[in-house]
Amino acid sequence: MEQIVQDMIREYQERVHHPSATEFAKIVSRNRPVVITGVLEEWPARRNWSLSNLRQKVGHTMVDVAETPSGNADSVVGDHFVQPYVSVQPLNSVFDWLESRHKGSREGNVKYVQTQNGNLATEFSTLQHDVLEFDWAKEVFGSAADAANIWIGNSESVTSLHKDPYENLYCQIAGVKTFTLIPPWEFYCLDERLLPTATYQPVANDKLAVVPDSPPLSIPWLCVDPTAPEQSPTFSEFCRPLRVDLQPGEVLYLPALWFHHVGQRSDEEGKVIAVNWWYDMCYSQPLYAQFNFMKAIVLAAKGGYGWK
Amino acid sequence: MEQIVQDMIREYQERVHHPSATEFAKIVSRNRPVVITGVLEEWPARRNWSLSNLRQKVGHTMVDVAETPSGNADSVVGDHFVQPYVSVQPLNSVFDWLESRHKGSREGNVKYVQTQNGNLATEFSTLQHDVLEFDWAKEVFGSAADAANIWIGNSESVTSLHKDPYENLYCQIAGVKTFTLIPPWEFYCLDERLLPTATYQPVANDKLAVVPDSPPLSIPWLCVDPTAPEQSPTFSEFCRPLRVDLQPGEVLYLPALWFHHVGQRSDEEGKVIAVNWWYDMCYSQPLYAQFNFMKAIVLAAKGGYGWK
Repeated sequence: MEQIVQDMIREYQERVHHPSATEFAKIVSRNRPVVITGVLEEWPARRNWSLSNLRQKVGHTMVDVAETPSGNADSVVGDHFVQPYVSVQPLNSVFDWLESRHKGSREGNVKYVQTQNGNLATEFSTLQHDVLEFDWAKEVFGSAADAANIWIGNSESVTSLHKDPYENLYCQIAGVKTFTLIPPWEFYCLDERLLPTATYQPVANDKLAVVPDSPPLSIPWLCVDPTAPEQSPTFSEFCRPLRVDLQPGEVLYLPALWFHHVGQRSDEEGKVIAVNWWYDMCYSQPLYAQFNFMKAIVLAAKGGYGWK
Repeated sequence: MEQIVQDMIREYQERVHHPSATEFAKIVSRNRPVVITGVLEEWPARRNWSLSNLRQKVGHTMVDVAETPSGNADSVVGDHFVQPYVSVQPLNSVFDWLESRHKGSREGNVKYVQTQNGNLATEFSTLQHDVLEFDWAKEVFGSAADAANIWIGNSESVTSLHKDPYENLYCQIAGVKTFTLIPPWEFYCLDERLLPTATYQPVANDKLAVVPDSPPLSIPWLCVDPTAPEQSPTFSEFCRPLRVDLQPGEVLYLPALWFHHVGQRSDEEGKVIAVNWWYDMCYSQPLYAQFNFMKAIVLAAKGGYGWK
């Protein structure tokens, strides 16, 4: 009975079933995120990507794996923006780790396969036929995707708030991702600061330590955590994040330049798997120039990076 | 031979032949003007709207007619923003005037049927079946048009630079209209000032005089003429207007909030006739809020209306 009520709520929230190209073009035109349902039914990935099948197909494939003490890759730690420790490992070592965590082990670091370099066409090419690009997306964006990426991890990993200069179709295969979405126009609320960069590096006993990059480098990064209960007065007063639980089989259209924070919940095998398609954003529509204009005004009003 | 060269140039310039709903949705998404061809072929208006046919069908219809000394309705005269003298006349008096002008007479004021109140459904309802709303437009804009307007005049009338909060499909029936189009984002170049309003009023011998409105009222208006060879340094340096000669049988998609100045060239009967459809703009996409933001910043930078 509860399931029926939950289904009704989900159906009521902004979800679009298998859009035509025209319907999707109108969605893109509005520059608003939408959950799309009914378009992953024919993906072999939805049926075939159990851990045992993946072990068979790609277990021995060597991939870049991001490791962090607590799932916090590319995020703010203390005064630094910290990147994960990345090493090349066979996927089986990631699957081993997922299974040990699922059985309750808390030893070792958090692993996340999160390279965003079009890995579906390279390291994961044997899985390529398990996913199908959407005709309506190709038609509306005017070309094939720039990149398709696979993400494999578990509920411990979090992606901190950021944006990408791409139109994004985020396809949930296993587990649930919780997106916190903030429009480009609410940049003012997000406390972007220049932070020195650092990287997690292994020290004794497989532990990771924050090591400032050398030579020193600073990058602008958003310092709010939109999922934390307490935030700055500016964030609380003006920011109205959207929250989306993306279920397996659902696709999130995440418009270019929208800020997003991503958490996840593992499935019954203790894994979370997604595939996303990145399409080039349209630089000839007003969005890009207007975003840069707004950002420049906000930074000027604040007197540059950091607090007023 | 020259005609062939001219056709090639026109074909090369941004023109779209009979778009599908998906193609049109992508055009709207880019927020750029486009000339659409091949969609008026089935309009009875294209064959039937000779002056003699119009006299038969609507000659006795009483309509609002705008009169000005030189075709300059709703424009800046001296220090005032001046509206035309409007009187109710039978359309035959407009047709008589068009024919006399075509024969070389220069007596009397310039007449222009330019009410923008959805006149196709009211005064001109007998002509309603001569035009056909576009399915692809209804599908993309999500509803029928808010208003359809008929415009009847000749080459003497000019519409000064302004914008409308509507998506506009401007359908050229007879004669040519020359649009000068400026993106919303170039507002900075357009010298908007607060001007006192006035109205042309008849004085002796059918002459019209500028009479300041009472009680006095001021409105913001754009003070550049984008067709004049010399403009302000700001306009010359930064503004890049598009110019479109809209031929009979062509449709201009004029996106909401784009500034436009319109001149016209009469056909072989001395008339210019157009029909435009206005669709509600989408207020939930970023355009509207970003335009208001940009305008507020421009006005703040200039210290309010008028020159710095």
